[in-house]
Order: sequence, then structure tokens, then C-alpha cells
Amino acid sequence: MTMIAKGLEGVLFTESKLTFINGAEGVLTHLGIPIQEWAEKSTFEELSLALLDAELPTAEELARFDAELKANRAIPREVEDLIRNMPKGVNPMQALRTAVSYLGLTDAESEDVTPEARRAISIRLIAQFATIIAAINRVQEGQDIVAPRADLTHAGNYLYMLNGKEPTAEQARLFDIALILHADHGMNASTFTAIATSSTISDMYSCIVSAIGALKGPLHGGANEQVMVMLDEVGSPENAVDYITDKLNRKEKIMGVGHRVYKNFDPRSRVLRDYAAHVAGKEGKSNYYQILETIEKTVVDRIGDRGIYPNVDFYSGTVYADLGIKKEYFTPIFALARISGWCASVIEYSKNNRLLRPDAYYIGQKNARYVDLKDRK
Amino acid sequence: MTMIAKGLEGVLFTESKLTFINGAEGVLTHLGIPIQEWAEKSTFEELSLALLDAELPTAEELARFDAELKANRAIPREVEDLIRNMPKGVNPMQALRTAVSYLGLTDAESEDVTPEARRAISIRLIAQFATIIAAINRVQEGQDIVAPRADLTHAGNYLYMLNGKEPTAEQARLFDIALILHADHGMNASTFTAIATSSTISDMYSCIVSAIGALKGPLHGGANEQVMVMLDEVGSPENAVDYITDKLNRKEKIMGVGHRVYKNFDPRSRVLRDYAAHVAGKEGKSNYYQILETIEKTVVDRIGDRGIYPNVDFYSGTVYADLGIKKEYFTPIFALARISGWCASVIEYSKNNRLLRPDAYYIGQKNARYVDLKDRK
Ligand SMILES: CC(C)(COP(=O)(O)OP(=O)(O)OC[C@H]1O[C@@H](n2cnc3c(N)ncnc32)[C@H](O)[C@@H]1OP(=O)(O)O)[C@@H](O)C(=O)NCCC(=O)NCCS
Ligand SMILES: CC(C)(COP(=O)(O)OP(=O)(O)OC[C@H]1O[C@@H](n2cnc3c(N)ncnc32)[C@H](O)[C@@H]1OP(=O)(O)O)[C@@H](O)C(=O)NCCC(=O)NCCS
Repeated sequence: MTMIAKGLEGVLFTESKLTFINGAEGVLTHLGIPIQEWAEKSTFEELSLALLDAELPTAEELARFDAELKANRAIPREVEDLIRNMPKGVNPMQALRTAVSYLGLTDAESEDVTPEARRAISIRLIAQFATIIAAINRVQEGQDIVAPRADLTHAGNYLYMLNGKEPTAEQARLFDIALILHADHGMNASTFTAIATSSTISDMYSCIVSAIGALKGPLHGGANEQVMVMLDEVGSPENAVDYITDKLNRKEKIMGVGHRVYKNFDPRSRVLRDYAAHVAGKEGKSNYYQILETIEKTVVDRIGDRGIYPNVDFYSGTVYADLGIKKEYFTPIFALARISGWCASVIEYSKNNRLLRPDAYYIGQKNARYVDLKDRK
Repeated sequence: MTMIAKGLEGVLFTESKLTFINGAEGVLTHLGIPIQEWAEKSTFEELSLALLDAELPTAEELARFDAELKANRAIPREVEDLIRNMPKGVNPMQALRTAVSYLGLTDAESEDVTPEARRAISIRLIAQFATIIAAINRVQEGQDIVAPRADLTHAGNYLYMLNGKEPTAEQARLFDIALILHADHGMNASTFTAIATSSTISDMYSCIVSAIGALKGPLHGGANEQVMVMLDEVGSPENAVDYITDKLNRKEKIMGVGHRVYKNFDPRSRVLRDYAAHVAGKEGKSNYYQILETIEKTVVDRIGDRGIYPNVDFYSGTVYADLGIKKEYFTPIFALARISGWCASVIEYSKNNRLLRPDAYYIGQKNARYVDLKDRK
């Protein structure tokens, strides 16, 4: 019997020191440290550096990295112009893909595939992703581009560039935590796609552009936006049970629940739920939050025994909405965080590269012959 | 013992009706028909349509497809402008990646992921790849863009747009055959990357942009250009043996030889060798051809027993050079052909999609704790 590993589920294709996931127990660690600790004690900058170098940085290394990020926040004039000239109403992930691809054309180091160059490009990409995404968002909304500031954190500066005004310390920290929770997640589809590209020894920009394309799909990064679409369709908490029941009876997938690896709970979803609850509690339980609570309960009742629980995308949207981010930009925000995991994973894989080339099981015709066009029916 | 499928070698992850490869016997078929027959009797247009629909077209279907290709050759004004404004001296594959990504922004249907839309977009992409690549080539050489003509074959029109003059019938047909030989090749790294992207249900442009990035690397599509670099380094046939021997002694890889699947011979390389020999014979054996003959012999003598033989990229360069194509454009020419295989494979996979999400074997720290920055050394 021929074994087909559909979706490559459970197939180990490389070794990694970065991220460990135990799906059954809902454990996620980076460098062996639980995600809850990262969320509570660290920053997106620190986790990014730790992933890139596969070790916890010293205070001095982190300060240097932070200074490099800040120094690299500005994007080239040509990329700004490109963003300004894009048609209105484009899909923001298509816009991001195009702007990052163009950025590669302006980087004199882009063809260098040494580990040092890959690391230097990664730092620039992490810094400039924020500027590019904020610029796309503003231009598409008919607003001016806001230049980055060097006195704010990565998260704080993003919200500043997006909204044109400085966020509160609490907002900046909440966004920082959201970035931490999304920074890396093992061999998810977009990271894997980045690695597939890099396995031919392609350049860093090609790897990241590939990853953006993969993240874009609704089965991956696109799910957070779809959750928000669902919340708007449901409208109010009392409709939630019927809405979900109908969808499940029609065998449609519910967005924001289910995961290839977590079959019990997703630890990131718990952390985000707590923050979402905190935000909701402070301002009086929001409609969204109440709908989410009801959906979670209904899904777990109905299909929890099949391993379907809320994933990281389930609660992230309400947190983003609260920070002034529109749902069309939820997936780019996912990219803003995951860029660190992409870069780190490409760097790690490149050190011990092997071309990724699986096979398909052939089920087509055998021993056919070419028939002349005139003799075909 | 944990099994790691390095490079996913031999891992079957899906079923396919399109292409069958028997590496041990040097067999390659599309829809069950040997590649030699496709090269001899068919055209790039016909093979492209056969792959897209997974069946041999009727004469009428082929005529309709051909008319659609011709009607879609022109590219939007904005994409022409983008190509004109790109910095001079950029890597042509980075330029192609960027132009195709931008093309997605101009296509009102780009977010449609139904099979019908994917097929319609594929036809446009196959047609427009030629126009984009020729335009990049000309602009980068300081020349005007040449508009496509609807009275030439796909191959003939490409050479016309590239050189600004109509090719001979023999040149057009030789190029057509080169495109046929490169149109599809099962789950090679770039096709696999396109599928990985599409497995999240991402859009067609994202899939193809990912594939361009993967093809670009020197272990995959980039090899044909590297073969030419090698020929220039060798300079004349009498240096070939020493050059190869030195490289092998230094454990460097020889470009254009070796293959993940073919361990005996690559049937595409045989067909191309015959054409290269034919061209060389007509015009008096060229220097390049003589060097290649000597390299082939040396490689097979030295490491043929380890399954290293010339692959498709070994002889393609001399054929391209003969058609007026510069070596920096060999990899884009590979893309010009492989676009059909990419689109067909994405369409086929999408019909029975499953998210691609493998795993890594974790070899990092366990049970670590976050240490405060001030306490680190
Ligand atoms: C993430 C995801 C693609 C993982 O899928 P997977 O490992 O390939 O799992 P499968 O699609 O094989 O699903 C297994 C079973 O659970 C069901 N299932 C999985 N996710 C479901 C969902 N979100 N809603 C309803 N049913 C779901 C499947 O229909 C399938 O049922 P079956 O055995 O009766 O056919 C999938 O759970 C999903 O599509 N979720 C929604 C999108 C999302 O939120 N993505 C973000 C992930 S962070
Ligand atoms: C195509 C390619 C990536 C397939 O590689 P793979 O299946 O991963 O094979 P491996 O790299 O594991 O090689 C197996 C052995 O053959 C050797 N080998 C493979 N290709 C070689 C080459 N082109 N020159 C010299 N030695 C080669 C490897 O060094 C290895 O030797 P080892 O066992 O002593 O370490 C590889 O052959 C290659 O790099 N070729 C050159 C690039 C090229 O022409 N690509 C176009 C393919 S159409």
C-alpha cells in the first residue's frame, strides 16, 4: 500500500532549535521558554533577536539590535512612491507582497545569501515591514504616509505610524504582546513556504515574498479577518448559536477554530482571550466579546471532541479592532509579527540546507501515445 | 529512532495525473505521453493546455486556447511603467517576481479562487509572462519595449519581442521545443512552493510569485545560468578536465549535473543535447559545445557511479545563447516555460486541497525559563 502524507501532516523534514509545540498539551515554547513567559516578560524586539540568533541575547546585544531596528525604519523613496501609486482597493496582502518584492530591487545586498547578509537583511525587513504596512494602510484610506519615529518601541511606533498619534503605554504594550504571540510557530504553512523557496538557495526577499503569499490564504493568516466578518454576520450574541449550528450542518468551516497541531487548546488563544476579556471588562463587555464567548461554547460543545478549539486568530481580531486596526489589515499585522519567525527559520534552515523536493503519487494514464490533432475526437 | 525526511526526498504528499517520472530508467511523461513525443510532435501551447485541463485537447479547444493566449499578450500600462522604472542592473528574476506581483494588483479577478477563475488567470499569466520577461530584458539593456504580435506562435513571438525582429521558422521551433522540455516536471521545488502557497487557499498570483522566488535559486532554475558562467570560466575544451577535477576535489558542486530524481540520465538533457549538437554541427562545432562534451565525460567518469549525470540545464544554455538570449535571462526563460506546470499543478492540487504543514524535529533546549536581562551573561 502506498502511503500518502496528505498535507505533510506529522512529516519531519528538518531539525530546529527555535520552537517546540506539544499539541496535545497545548504547550508552545521558543528556545524552551513558554509562550506565556515571553508574552508577560519580554518584548517583540527581544523575541525577534532571540529567534534570529537562536539564543537569548545579552542586554548589550539587545540594545544594539534595537538601535539597528530603529535606524532602519525608513523605507526608500521608490517604495513609498510605489505604494502611493497602487490602485485603490487592492488586497493589502497583495500590496505588501508587491512592496516587499520591490524593496528587494533597491537593496544592494539582496543577492548575498551568506548567513551574515541574511541576518542583516532580516533586521531591515523586520524594521521596514512596519513602515510598509502602515504606509499601505494609510494610502489606501486616502491619508498621508506618517514617517517612523525612533523614540518609540516597534509596537508603539507601528500604532503611531498607523494612527498619526502616539498610542498610550497600555495600547503599545498590548500590541507588543499580540506581536509576541504571533512571532513564530514552527513549521506553519508560510514559514514552510519560505523554507521551500530558500532550499534552492534563493535570496532572502524571494523567501519572504513567498511567505507573504502563503500567509494570505484564509486557512492560515487570512483566518483572523474572516473571524471579524463572521462576528459582523452574527451581529448580536443571541444569534450566535443558530449561526454556528447552521454552518456546521452545512459542513462549512468555522474560521478561527481548529488547528493542525493543537487538538485540545491553543495556548496563544488563552493569553489573547485574557487580554480581550480585560479590554472588554474595562469598557463594559463589548458585543464582539460576548459573541465570541457564545461561539466558543457552541463550537466546543458540538465539535470539541474532534479536537476543534479556538486558535490564535479567534480572539486577536477584537484586540486589533480595539487598537484602531481595520479588519482588512489583520493579516498584514500577522505578517508584521511573523516576519521574525520567517527570517529566523530561513537562516536556521540555510545552515544545513537541502533542496525540498517531495513527490506525488501518479494516478494518471500510462503508456499513452501522442495522437495527431486531426485524429482526436 | 526518529525519521527525518531530509529534503522530503521520496515523500508522497498528494496524487497527480499530470507528470510521471521514473528516475532509474530516465522516463518522463506528461499525461502518459513520453517527453520525446511531446518535443517532436507538439507545441508549447498544446502541452500547456493539456496540463491545465489534464487531458489532450481537441483541435477546436486548442484553437480557442491559442486565440485566448494571443488576445492576452499585452500587459497593462502600469506594469510596463513599473518595468521601465526599475533600477538598472537588477536581478531579472527579482524583476519578474515584482512585475508579476504588481500584475496581480491590476487584475480585478485576482482574488477569485474558483477553478474557473484560476484557469482564466493561468491563461493570462502564460501569455503575459512572455511579454513581461521580454520587456524586462529590453529595458534593462536600454532598449524600447516591443509590443507582442498576434500572428506568431508563443515561442516565435517571444523571440520577436526580445530581438525586435522575426525569428526564422527553425529558430522559433527550436525555442518551442526548449519550452516544451521545461514546461512541467512533477513536484520540483518551485512547483511545490506554488502548491504550498495555494494550500492556504491563497490567490493565483501569490502562488506564482512564490514559485518564481523558488525557481531563482542556483540549485533549481538558477543552474542553467551557472552552467554558462562555468563554460566561460573554462574558456576552452582543453581546460575542462582540470577545471572539473579541481572543483570535485574541493567538493564543490558542478552546475547542470545531478538530480534528485534522475540517477541515470535525464531524458530532457538527451533531447537538448541532440539539438545542441545539431546547431553546433551546422555552424561548425562551437567552443561551448566541445567544452560541454568534455565536462560530461569527466563528470560521468568521476561521479557517474553516484548517480550524477547531466540534467536539463546542462545543454539548454548553449541553445539559448544561439537564439540571442543572454545568460542572465536563462532562468526567466525557464520560468517562461514552467509557468504552465505551476498553474496546472496549483489547479490540480486546489481541487483536493489540504493545508501543507509538516513538522520539524525539535533539538533545542527544554524547560528553560526566561531570565531577566540584567541577570544574563
Ligand atoms: C487550521 C486548519 C486548516 C487545520 O486543518 P487540518 O489539520 O487540515 O484539519 P482538517 O481540515 O483535516 O480537519 C479535520 C476535521 O475537522 C473538521 N474541521 C477542521 N477545522 C474546522 C473548522 N474550522 N470548522 C469546522 N470543522 C473543522 C474538518 O472538517 C474535518 O472533519 P472531517 O474529518 O469530518 O472531514 C483547519 O482547522 C481550518 O480550516 N480552520 C479554520 C481556519 C483557521 O482558523 N485557520 C487559522 C489557523 S491558526
Ligand atoms: C539537483 C541537486 C540539488 C539534487 O540534489 P540532492 O538530491 O539533494 O542530492 P545531494 O545534494 O544529496 O547529493 C548526493 C551526493 O551527490 C553529490 N552531488 C550532487 N550533485 C552534485 C553536483 N552537481 N556536483 C557534484 N556533486 C554532486 C553530493 O555532493 C552528494 O555527495 P555526498 O553523498 O558525498 O555528500 C544537486 O544534484 C545539485 O545541486 N545539482 C547542481 C545544480 C543543478 O544543476 N540543478 C538543476 C537541477 S534540474
